[in-house]
Amino acid sequence: MRVLVLGGDGYLGWPTAMYLSNRGHEVAVLDNFAKRRWEMELNVEPLIPIHTLHDRVKSWRQVSGRVIPLFVGDLRNYEVVKGSIEAFKPEAIIHYGEQPSAPYSMMDHNRAVFTQTNNIVGTLNILWVLRDYAPGCHLVKLGTMGEYGTPNIDIEEGFLEVEYKGRKDVLPYPKQAGSIYHLSKVHDSHNILFACRAWQLRSTDLNQGVVYGVETDETPMDERLATSFHYDEVFGTALNRFCVQAVTGIPLTVYGRGGQTRGFLNIRDTLRCVELAALNPPAAGEYRVFNQFTETFSVLQLAELVKEQGRRLGLPVEIKHLDNPRIEAEQHYYHARHQKLIDLGLVPHLLSDVLLASMLKRVKGQAHRIKKEIIQPHVRWSRSSPSDQAHQKAWAAARTSDE
Amino acid sequence: MRVLVLGGDGYLGWPTAMYLSNRGHEVAVLDNFAKRRWEMELNVEPLIPIHTLHDRVKSWRQVSGRVIPLFVGDLRNYEVVKGSIEAFKPEAIIHYGEQPSAPYSMMDHNRAVFTQTNNIVGTLNILWVLRDYAPGCHLVKLGTMGEYGTPNIDIEEGFLEVEYKGRKDVLPYPKQAGSIYHLSKVHDSHNILFACRAWQLRSTDLNQGVVYGVETDETPMDERLATSFHYDEVFGTALNRFCVQAVTGIPLTVYGRGGQTRGFLNIRDTLRCVELAALNPPAAGEYRVFNQFTETFSVLQLAELVKEQGRRLGLPVEIKHLDNPRIEAEQHYYHARHQKLIDLGLVPHLLSDVLLASMLKRVKGQAHRIKKEIIQPHVRWSRSSPSDQAHQKAWAAARTSDE
Repeated sequence: MRVLVLGGDGYLGWPTAMYLSNRGHEVAVLDNFAKRRWEMELNVEPLIPIHTLHDRVKSWRQVSGRVIPLFVGDLRNYEVVKGSIEAFKPEAIIHYGEQPSAPYSMMDHNRAVFTQTNNIVGTLNILWVLRDYAPGCHLVKLGTMGEYGTPNIDIEEGFLEVEYKGRKDVLPYPKQAGSIYHLSKVHDSHNILFACRAWQLRSTDLNQGVVYGVETDETPMDERLATSFHYDEVFGTALNRFCVQAVTGIPLTVYGRGGQTRGFLNIRDTLRCVELAALNPPAAGEYRVFNQFTETFSVLQLAELVKEQGRRLGLPVEIKHLDNPRIEAEQHYYHARHQKLIDLGLVPHLLSDVLLASMLKRVKGQAHRIKKEIIQPHVRWSRSSPSDQAHQKAWAAARTSDE
Repeated sequence: MRVLVLGGDGYLGWPTAMYLSNRGHEVAVLDNFAKRRWEMELNVEPLIPIHTLHDRVKSWRQVSGRVIPLFVGDLRNYEVVKGSIEAFKPEAIIHYGEQPSAPYSMMDHNRAVFTQTNNIVGTLNILWVLRDYAPGCHLVKLGTMGEYGTPNIDIEEGFLEVEYKGRKDVLPYPKQAGSIYHLSKVHDSHNILFACRAWQLRSTDLNQGVVYGVETDETPMDERLATSFHYDEVFGTALNRFCVQAVTGIPLTVYGRGGQTRGFLNIRDTLRCVELAALNPPAAGEYRVFNQFTETFSVLQLAELVKEQGRRLGLPVEIKHLDNPRIEAEQHYYHARHQKLIDLGLVPHLLSDVLLASMLKRVKGQAHRIKKEIIQPHVRWSRSSPSDQAHQKAWAAARTSDE
């Protein structure tokens, strides 16, 4: 099928494009390279330097013989969205093209407003272009499990069957997002649901857990095809960060008590989930939600797994509980359904000891490139207090220091 | 108390400012006159011409001896929000300053994106200014009953006590908004809830029903103090529009079967509700929702009330069912709680025959000013089809014709 991958330069966008291309789909990518600029703003970079998207598309052609057309443009520009969809005529759009970091969205007022307008306007533009020019096209949208927050009841896949005072209905699952970024995804979800109902569009909202790993079937085909591995406080996710800390001898930074439980998945499963969604489109007018993760861990469990595995490799790993920079429950009920992708055929790659060992070894091979000063959390969720302001200054200083 | 009214030039903003000023509160208003421009764009105007806000503030001082400072600026500009809050130091902010029309938000892509960014960014700016400069200030935000949609269970005030698989929680009430405009209010609600929890702000979200009427305690004090009465398809609400149709001999336009049931309230009750919310602020960190309406009617019931009352006044009123331009359930369960404002002391002004008669007489006195061509609905919710495009052209033509 013809698939347009939005955010094709990103951590997941590029591996998704290769994966689908390698399986015989016609794939195009679109990006505006915004994340490259955010990295520069913050003086952070992926552990392994990654090639430009232009280079990677070229390398992919050399390696696989397959062509991935590249559109360069900003999704906030309606003409960019319309132009790429009219030119490529996708049957499915995989939409990763949003600002993806919760800490980035909480850094300051400008970045908060940017995150919401960037993410909402991009998705609104897509919906209006589909409405008027490609109503049959299937929008596969990346949401996040963070949209649900941590309710004291089971989390279902997008909708909740409610029985209340003797009456019944199936309603959108109530959302309690924990950052300006997560809220932007909640807003997207409401907008997409409406567009499907009002305009008979079709969409799958993938409420994804925390992704880990960098290796897919395609990345080993050529070193120029690598995707980004972030370990910094803004773009790095917990497991990636813990691996880097284990290798460098920095204590693993568990925020607060560490009882925060989340869904996780291997990057390989992300690619397969997205493919399964695209291959099995919903009916016209249908908005459906899949919870996209394979296992749940508390942050502390995850740290302990890394510690245990690190010790087996001779790394002296310690765990340190930090003052939680976020505002979130640190002990809570968490039981989230994730059945629909399994039903479509997903066979999960679980976080085995073997995988963790290979991640640690991979990071160890790049240990000389690790910037230690970008790991500690400085972005705080809470209102500014004098001590928070000191944090912010320390953050700015760390980003401009030589080491 | 010191109250800043955002959107102080609007249908409700100006009467609210006078009402609070008249009761001894210190009141300031802020507006960017955007709605005056939208009226020009669409070639519509209120039934009775209203004076500029500068004039009305001046007239109010002459009539009442009370001063209402006027800030002119756009809430999307952070410095405008910060500047007015720092200068006036409000204890409460009444936030009407948003694009308020569902049809306007559905006219085209540009207006859809404008509506969401305008409304979301304005409110985000307020939240961030409160966070950093006025965390104790109470944000009284105007939402809409339309955020809930028409679920098949009772609508509660903002939150729903859910019992699910043997566990319990109180969760934000699931939202199913029916237009891009209504969605913008849903997004605001989620953002405000988060800000209250993360930053210990305090806010009351007033999910308001459809407001009718133009007369308050203050408007009769001087004709220059009048507020706007819209009857056009974009800014007019059902009851106002029906009164105009009854007077001009146009059949009352009921969209679809007319079983759509909504909450309604008199403009006098809006003012009292807003005052009650402001006088009884929530605790720091608390986000609360009041459903702000006093009665429910189906659209058809409302039309029949106007028809009956019109006949008593000798007006030959007919009812006409139109193809529904919106996408909404036309027969549905509707039972929405509206107790919290009653508990605070609201004594509703119900839609009595007397009030309806006075509204009809008032409109009749201005019958020569009615532009018939702006009443019929042309903005459609559904995807463009050739016939919809014809509608849009007819709409554009009607707006530029001499009559």
